[in-house]
Amino acid sequence: MPDSPVLQIKPPSPELAAKIANTIRFLSADAVQKANSGHPGAPMGMAEIATVLLTRFLRIDPKDEKWSNRDRFVLSSGHACMLLYSMLYFQGYLTLEDLTNFRQLGSRTPGHPEYGEVPGVEATTGPLGAGFSMAVGMSIGERMLAETYNTPKFDVVDHFTYVLMGDGCHMEGITNEAASLAGHLRLGRLIVLYDDNHITIEGDTSLAFTENVGQRYEALNWHVQHIDGHDCQAIAQAIEAAQSETTRPSLIVARTIIGKGAPTKAGSHHVHGAPIGDAEIAAGKAAIGFPNQPFYVPPEVAEYFEVRRGELHALRQDWNQLFGEYEKKHRSSARELIRVLSGELPKQWKKAVPEFPSDKALASRSSGGQIMNKLGTVLPELVGGSADLAPSNNTEIKTGASPDFIGPGSFLGRNIHFGVREHAMGGVLNGLALHGGFIPYGGTFMVFHDYMRGAVRLSSLMRLRTIFVYTHDSFYVGEDGPTHEPVEHLAALRALPRLHVWRPADANEAIYAWQAAIERRDGPSVLALTRQNLPTLDRNAFAPARESLKGMYILWSTLGKPLDVLIVATGSEVHLGLAVAKALAEEGRGVRVVSAPCLEAFALQPEGYRKKVLPRRPRKRLVLEAGIIQGWEGIMGETGLFVGMDDFGISGPANQVAAKLGFTPEAVLTKIREAGW
Amino acid sequence: MPDSPVLQIKPPSPELAAKIANTIRFLSADAVQKANSGHPGAPMGMAEIATVLLTRFLRIDPKDEKWSNRDRFVLSSGHACMLLYSMLYFQGYLTLEDLTNFRQLGSRTPGHPEYGEVPGVEATTGPLGAGFSMAVGMSIGERMLAETYNTPKFDVVDHFTYVLMGDGCHMEGITNEAASLAGHLRLGRLIVLYDDNHITIEGDTSLAFTENVGQRYEALNWHVQHIDGHDCQAIAQAIEAAQSETTRPSLIVARTIIGKGAPTKAGSHHVHGAPIGDAEIAAGKAAIGFPNQPFYVPPEVAEYFEVRRGELHALRQDWNQLFGEYEKKHRSSARELIRVLSGELPKQWKKAVPEFPSDKALASRSSGGQIMNKLGTVLPELVGGSADLAPSNNTEIKTGASPDFIGPGSFLGRNIHFGVREHAMGGVLNGLALHGGFIPYGGTFMVFHDYMRGAVRLSSLMRLRTIFVYTHDSFYVGEDGPTHEPVEHLAALRALPRLHVWRPADANEAIYAWQAAIERRDGPSVLALTRQNLPTLDRNAFAPARESLKGMYILWSTLGKPLDVLIVATGSEVHLGLAVAKALAEEGRGVRVVSAPCLEAFALQPEGYRKKVLPRRPRKRLVLEAGIIQGWEGIMGETGLFVGMDDFGISGPANQVAAKLGFTPEAVLTKIREAGW
Repeated sequence: MPDSPVLQIKPPSPELAAKIANTIRFLSADAVQKANSGHPGAPMGMAEIATVLLTRFLRIDPKDEKWSNRDRFVLSSGHACMLLYSMLYFQGYLTLEDLTNFRQLGSRTPGHPEYGEVPGVEATTGPLGAGFSMAVGMSIGERMLAETYNTPKFDVVDHFTYVLMGDGCHMEGITNEAASLAGHLRLGRLIVLYDDNHITIEGDTSLAFTENVGQRYEALNWHVQHIDGHDCQAIAQAIEAAQSETTRPSLIVARTIIGKGAPTKAGSHHVHGAPIGDAEIAAGKAAIGFPNQPFYVPPEVAEYFEVRRGELHALRQDWNQLFGEYEKKHRSSARELIRVLSGELPKQWKKAVPEFPSDKALASRSSGGQIMNKLGTVLPELVGGSADLAPSNNTEIKTGASPDFIGPGSFLGRNIHFGVREHAMGGVLNGLALHGGFIPYGGTFMVFHDYMRGAVRLSSLMRLRTIFVYTHDSFYVGEDGPTHEPVEHLAALRALPRLHVWRPADANEAIYAWQAAIERRDGPSVLALTRQNLPTLDRNAFAPARESLKGMYILWSTLGKPLDVLIVATGSEVHLGLAVAKALAEEGRGVRVVSAPCLEAFALQPEGYRKKVLPRRPRKRLVLEAGIIQGWEGIMGETGLFVGMDDFGISGPANQVAAKLGFTPEAVLTKIREAGW
Repeated sequence: MPDSPVLQIKPPSPELAAKIANTIRFLSADAVQKANSGHPGAPMGMAEIATVLLTRFLRIDPKDEKWSNRDRFVLSSGHACMLLYSMLYFQGYLTLEDLTNFRQLGSRTPGHPEYGEVPGVEATTGPLGAGFSMAVGMSIGERMLAETYNTPKFDVVDHFTYVLMGDGCHMEGITNEAASLAGHLRLGRLIVLYDDNHITIEGDTSLAFTENVGQRYEALNWHVQHIDGHDCQAIAQAIEAAQSETTRPSLIVARTIIGKGAPTKAGSHHVHGAPIGDAEIAAGKAAIGFPNQPFYVPPEVAEYFEVRRGELHALRQDWNQLFGEYEKKHRSSARELIRVLSGELPKQWKKAVPEFPSDKALASRSSGGQIMNKLGTVLPELVGGSADLAPSNNTEIKTGASPDFIGPGSFLGRNIHFGVREHAMGGVLNGLALHGGFIPYGGTFMVFHDYMRGAVRLSSLMRLRTIFVYTHDSFYVGEDGPTHEPVEHLAALRALPRLHVWRPADANEAIYAWQAAIERRDGPSVLALTRQNLPTLDRNAFAPARESLKGMYILWSTLGKPLDVLIVATGSEVHLGLAVAKALAEEGRGVRVVSAPCLEAFALQPEGYRKKVLPRRPRKRLVLEAGIIQGWEGIMGETGLFVGMDDFGISGPANQVAAKLGFTPEAVLTKIREAGW
């Protein structure tokens, strides 16, 4: 499909373009005024940019917000959401009434753009830099799908990814990480408009931000242009130049006046985050000849977009025809593309991973890597990488279609070198998931979750199928010491709503953890995997590993004795629990060991099952986990014991650290005896 | 004090310098070999840089690692710690035996540099970029003290801050944030040596990192030089040029060969993170004429440093003399400088803050800001700022000495515009605390703790007195919606070992929260403050606010009735708890309300007190907090009720959101009745 000639048919006259911009400007001001809350300055300042994007560039289908080849548009400065909502109104996704309900409970126009809640919003934004990083992920995804599925005659994937961002986004570290990666990969279809308004919340950007942003992006291998952000012609030319530059992402530094259109407040930080006032709005409208009427849309603006939406829908129909021909000529590619975009899994995919025999000890990072590789043979949509720890995380897929690394300008592959950029990795994974066509995963040491927590939170909030592979999940890291030993991380991860945290006890539990993460459609999953070897349990002697899908299950029990001690453990500590159980059983006591790989999955089980696994009696409940107690008190009950940690770890050989911290059967048995059990 | 002429007296001959570098190189290789764990490549590659710093530049006192005017040296690539430990050995802080115990349990040479555990280590490093950001903080601190306390005749504070860092640090977002801030502030005494070895864990940097780092730093207003990192003369000249450049921080891009000295493995990622092998070491030593003897130190190298340490100590004595004269001429400045460097507080400082009257409702972010301002009048060491949210966080100190903002090249002030750089802010705060002379604080919205969690963890691990001011602490943020509403953050913060989390219920509890944070010498504190107004409790009717220092206290009880319902709440929910208690009391029931501003402080109270506040009976325990249940189950017990959240927040006016989520007395009372209480 040639690049958007249809879109050039009827650019509005300069007068009409100005009117559209002013309409957007005051729709935003009016909505903030009515809500008595919000950010009018940036939308008013970016009104011309929005106008040019809407009238000349953005390829979307007004009748199908989910069209796979739509241009992606991300407002990274999410606080400026009234700009986006105004755009979505003209695109046909929101109504004027929606705009009047800005920031109200239950409205489709919340205080920041929310993916899944607002039609046409491509990503939840607000935390600065996040939107930009997700757009980088979308742009990577577009190229990966294009190079995998397009043919010389059929560019069925060829959209652009547009981003609007402000100074705040540029100050955030995640943005530099993502920009460095985007420049490295030469993402020629990523076009970023920078709302360079020189104003932040504390005042002029000269207070804290005096770097040369354009020069920085040039150093990051970007194509950089500088324009007047209120000159529609200049904006259009810059975007065309950016489209023509196919080997580098583009940054268009658009000098704007924040709050432009507000007669006395424009250009100051007072217009950033509060309503500008009725008088200011009235004077502003008077100056441009608008009636003083809230949410006013001039009839010619409404008419223009009516026609425009028709054009855009026709364009989509052209694509449908193209895709129809593609389907005929390339049946299996088309079928696969449709499937991966739908998020559905192929039949029989679970059979790709046979269970591990029990004769070999394996670190769960190793079994996890093997499982992922087997899944890779049947799931081409499984793509990802590591933040420069692939050899340690075992996150390279060496099998299946295109088992290569993507690289600069080359996207036929499934492995990504993210570099030491955890936060951007998280954003890119989210962007891949949002784009569609992928089940993305990313690895790092669990302790460095801290560097990417913002992205994991957004993934949870958006309910994305993103998989975070966190290896080196406890003090068993050993010599690297407390900076590298997770202590509070399992608790901190479980604290995140909608996130499922899996900590398998052996290679076979790891199979089902991976399976659950892939099957889950309503949120992200963490796989917490060990650095150190774990025995592979003999499932003839223990409950089937498949039971672990229930989150908790009875792994082993003494027979024929009343239950006296109930042991609950996760991951590597399951083996410690089994050793303790065995010792207690040898003393003639009734013992049960519950393996608890995923508390969130367990919470979803029927009450009957939960009560069966964790009956109210016995009162002697022992919980084992190489982390803090937080989150376990409910399961322990008031009379339970906890073997875990309450301070940071120590540097030393792992087994010595374990002994020092009391993670031996002897130490646990001593604790049990001291408790009078 | 003129710039270090003494240090130039005896630069070693080129031959001796080479021998020193080779000694450092193989001490590192030997230690990793013996430990069978660690990172030999970077230390071997940076051996000449370390040699030049040790022999020509670093001003330290071998007999007093805590000398206030010592040069600060931070190894940001902490995994290369054997380089640092070799340096500390030559500086006299570690013994050769310490080096042989590298990475062993209980040794003074853990797997990453640990502040407080290893003499001479200025900052715990390992998480990449963190060390660099802390060095930026140290350099800011040096200038702030210098401009405050130096006089034309007496430069009692005039040290340099040196950093070694690698590619990994440069890829991390925190580094760009901190570098942008450092360039903005024109930190002329910050000198960074970049170990540009082109190798990362996954392979060559060309796999993921092809930006022009030097050009990026130029865009960030840095002075940038490029040298051969194995040429001692070039290194020395570059550092001299960096010292001469007083208006910009300096980046010296030193091209090095990772693992230099390893005959077959040098220059590859195989030398990054694993022992290079006995044979490789033997061959390497043979090539430079060293005996094949582990931990070999040539006698002339040992002799050289013996003399060197004497010189350095003499230099310190010169400074002592200078300071003695300064003390005579500027008695009160000297006394204050000594005091702030000691970390001791002035007498009577607590009297600066009178309690608030109960006639006015105040958001705790407002009362917090007022308290901080009053403390500022008596504590010149209290300095900080916000990540571009000062007007919302109320974190500007407008009173006391030098109530200005520091700015480019101008450091006589106490307020810092951090820009939208949360993670770097955290690092800078830690650096200020590590430097000494400051009680640093930093503000942002609580939800953006996620962006700086790595820094808060390091603060906790290092037990620094850093204060994190997190306002907008719940869904009462309202219209900004779920991206801006903390839900899991209180739990995630409490999960961090050694961190104290304060969530005051009113203006007067906020006084004691601030007081506790300032008085605490063994770790950081969080102040969780509200956006919305809170009533100021009339302390004639309720327990004294001072009781809140105990972490939990009985705020109010019915009299003369057996205790039936025990209510525990924090922050804004204390008022909800009181309303519920009042309703229950009116029904004739015995009720107690416990305010729980700090669970960690409570845990430190004597058992008797804790049992008094939270007796085993009654069984009806109601916990109220606008966050998740995690961490409360132990206090609730098995029969308790929790009023909180289990999912993300919603956008809408705060009180409507509260009603929707069940945070009204009516909704809580209904819940109580449904529970059959």
